[in-house]
Amino acid sequence: MRHALREAELAYQLGEIPIGAVVAFTATGQVIGRGHNQTEQLRDVTAHAEMLALTAAANHLGNKYLHDCTLYVTVEPCVMCAGAAAWAQVPRVVFGAPEEKFGYRRHGQLLHPRCELVTGVLADECAALMQRFFAERRK
Amino acid sequence: MRHALREAELAYQLGEIPIGAVVAFTATGQVIGRGHNQTEQLRDVTAHAEMLALTAAANHLGNKYLHDCTLYVTVEPCVMCAGAAAWAQVPRVVFGAPEEKFGYRRHGQLLHPRCELVTGVLADECAALMQRFFAERRK
Repeated sequence: MRHALREAELAYQLGEIPIGAVVAFTATGQVIGRGHNQTEQLRDVTAHAEMLALTAAANHLGNKYLHDCTLYVTVEPCVMCAGAAAWAQVPRVVFGAPEEKFGYRRHGQLLHPRCELVTGVLADECAALMQRFFAERRK
Repeated sequence: MRHALREAELAYQLGEIPIGAVVAFTATGQVIGRGHNQTEQLRDVTAHAEMLALTAAANHLGNKYLHDCTLYVTVEPCVMCAGAAAWAQVPRVVFGAPEEKFGYRRHGQLLHPRCELVTGVLADECAALMQRFFAERRK
């Protein structure tokens, strides 16, 4: 999750909503895909951190299925990203801060049926970065 | 929808699950983004027809919001693509064939709250292409 937070800080520095994600091998922790939110820079709603990390990991493996991997993301994924993780059959998703409004969980179980979910990892740091961003934007 | 079907036929010829999508200006019908399913070619689960068409349209406009547009897609979108259409605030989605298993609708209303949904347009042709693909793959 430290790697994902570093990605989120990158997004913050670029004026993007500060969310970061990495895909790593579950067994070794080796990071094989990274992404930070780039929706403003790319003017593309699909450029969420998770989407970019999932695509990068699939490119790294040459395989669209990420069976031996964990997706780490600083904030609860949205519906789009949960759907992408399900298609990639990611067996483990770890997120930091919950997201009441845009998180996928209020729409039910959208991850792969066999996916293990871990929540609240470095949640305070992940949430603090979001709060800082939105507090500054309101000024 | 004819344009979307042409995209689906392209996917079919490439050995992809034959789903196609276009984004067009609602007022004029001018197509500003196209996509056909490329998940196998690109080895990337995020390369659904709708995602590619939405990204292409945003690139065309230089705007991540597709406020004056309609998304046409041959088959009911999945959760991921419905989520992407919601983020792009697409105000009108038209699909052909329903998709019982992987369609977003069994998870509730995932499109933008103000999105108009039209279903069943050229549904038989859209469904027939899917059936042909899966029948051939079973052989």
